[in-house]
Amino acid sequence: MKDITIGVDIGGTNTKYGIVDRQGNVLFHDSISTKQFDEVTDYIKALEDAFRAAVKNMGDDYQLVGIGIGAANGNYYKGTIEHATNLKWKGIIPLSDMLHKPFGVPVLVTNDANAAAVGEMVYGAAKGMKDFVVITLGTGLGSGFVCNGQLINGKHGIAGELGHTTVNYAGRYCNCGKRGCLETYVSATGIRRSVYKLLADHLEPSELRGISFDNLNTEMITHAAIRGDVVARAAFEYTGRILGTKLAETVVHTDPEAIFLFGGLSLAGDLIFKPTIKHMEANLMPLFRGKVKILPSGLQNQSAPILGASSLVWNHLEEKGAIPA
Amino acid sequence: MKDITIGVDIGGTNTKYGIVDRQGNVLFHDSISTKQFDEVTDYIKALEDAFRAAVKNMGDDYQLVGIGIGAANGNYYKGTIEHATNLKWKGIIPLSDMLHKPFGVPVLVTNDANAAAVGEMVYGAAKGMKDFVVITLGTGLGSGFVCNGQLINGKHGIAGELGHTTVNYAGRYCNCGKRGCLETYVSATGIRRSVYKLLADHLEPSELRGISFDNLNTEMITHAAIRGDVVARAAFEYTGRILGTKLAETVVHTDPEAIFLFGGLSLAGDLIFKPTIKHMEANLMPLFRGKVKILPSGLQNQSAPILGASSLVWNHLEEKGAIPA
Repeated sequence: MKDITIGVDIGGTNTKYGIVDRQGNVLFHDSISTKQFDEVTDYIKALEDAFRAAVKNMGDDYQLVGIGIGAANGNYYKGTIEHATNLKWKGIIPLSDMLHKPFGVPVLVTNDANAAAVGEMVYGAAKGMKDFVVITLGTGLGSGFVCNGQLINGKHGIAGELGHTTVNYAGRYCNCGKRGCLETYVSATGIRRSVYKLLADHLEPSELRGISFDNLNTEMITHAAIRGDVVARAAFEYTGRILGTKLAETVVHTDPEAIFLFGGLSLAGDLIFKPTIKHMEANLMPLFRGKVKILPSGLQNQSAPILGASSLVWNHLEEKGAIPA
Repeated sequence: MKDITIGVDIGGTNTKYGIVDRQGNVLFHDSISTKQFDEVTDYIKALEDAFRAAVKNMGDDYQLVGIGIGAANGNYYKGTIEHATNLKWKGIIPLSDMLHKPFGVPVLVTNDANAAAVGEMVYGAAKGMKDFVVITLGTGLGSGFVCNGQLINGKHGIAGELGHTTVNYAGRYCNCGKRGCLETYVSATGIRRSVYKLLADHLEPSELRGISFDNLNTEMITHAAIRGDVVARAAFEYTGRILGTKLAETVVHTDPEAIFLFGGLSLAGDLIFKPTIKHMEANLMPLFRGKVKILPSGLQNQSAPILGASSLVWNHLEEKGAIPA
């Protein structure tokens, strides 16, 4: 019998999941829609059916030993999702309990970005690093901190909510109820809002003027910028300036070796990295200048959150002594 | 023979030092001026003489096993002070090497606030806590982070420079070369600047109008506020608002159980704690509200940095197995 885990990445739009072995091979992966379910119980039932089918398809040589889940506002200690701003279902969702019942294996939950950070450390570009930060740029902005080689969960299991630090106290409205949060500027949604702000403020022609807010996505903005579109390029410059300026603040908290950018927006390469690095350096106190690298994630974007989530299970079993480290 | 350490707290104005035993008793303490020395070599010579006299006075039953030093921009890994903004001597000062030569014992250096954080954990109000932050409010503002029960030193040994996060990018000039750093508003110097700003902007009578900038200190502002002085009270409200607003940012990084305020400004009690707590809560994302305590340091203000610095030595010797943990 070969041990397998299910790694799950719950996003506001889709939930991606995969079957992962001890070596970090993703043996199977698929996704279901998150936002189509009005009731969380229906969503859990759909996950249960999907997971059961995936494990069954693996055949009799494999046994499921645990489920690891990364989700915005995931709480490691309680196994819950609490007041997630990117999901329809409000309040506290006892995710671990709900999925432990049908499968009878440990179900571990954390912040999706914390899961990505563990994945980066175990399989990615942070191998061998003891102090680093991962910034996930998806619908929102998540972050995971590793210090002294350990994931920082915090007292209440909710460390790493950098997306809700404030850029402008009179700024854009955020799902969390505050205004001017970092993720309202720096995320797939944030750059879309910035494009619309720039189109409103300026007169320059832009191929993005023909696209509705609902249809606009990061890829379109990236491709327009590569083709030289002035507004698209300005949107990346604006996004990188805000991200870099904020990262200068983060750096003086935990003094990381590197900050990894992960997710859609980070695939734009120099368009986002150059202004981010420039404005981080310009805003750092001299002591820190030239010391902290801004790097792309070393993991394939599709499987990283799944790998990170699955690695929670192996960690847990090793700590319990259930499997050798 | 009884083992003793010297704990040293290097401030911009004075250097305090004390002889500390394994149980955390300060057997002797004194101080020398820091700022009177134009050359760092003269300063080190004065420290050497003072330490030698202090150890000799203890008598033959005691032996010095190490020196622990807390200093702004102290680097734990290198044993140096690097580009400290509060000292006359620029560049990199190899403090550990300079003091190791005459005494032949381990000399450990860290950020003064990191030393205070270790002291708070070992002897103070953070006993038993695994995730907390200490904010030291002296001439500047320092911070020390403990996560998972460990001090966060960071990759380059310079974590916890919260005093140089930015409050206002067009704000007050800071010794570090930037503008609008937190410590230019929240520190003994910061509140003095705020009193002068308020005196400049407003017409209200105030007993502080008769005191020069050079003569004004935190105690005067505190006592004026207690007596109901409108400007002094407004200065504390302004200081607490800026500190609380910034702490709301820090909280989402590492999710601490508590944030301890230590040093002169924190002795003003409700005058500083009330606005700090109010504005932190108002600026936190809902997920974190009501969870993080703002508390006074549990250590006597005089000896805490000395205790913290000395605890670096015991930690070091225990890790090496030189003494039992």
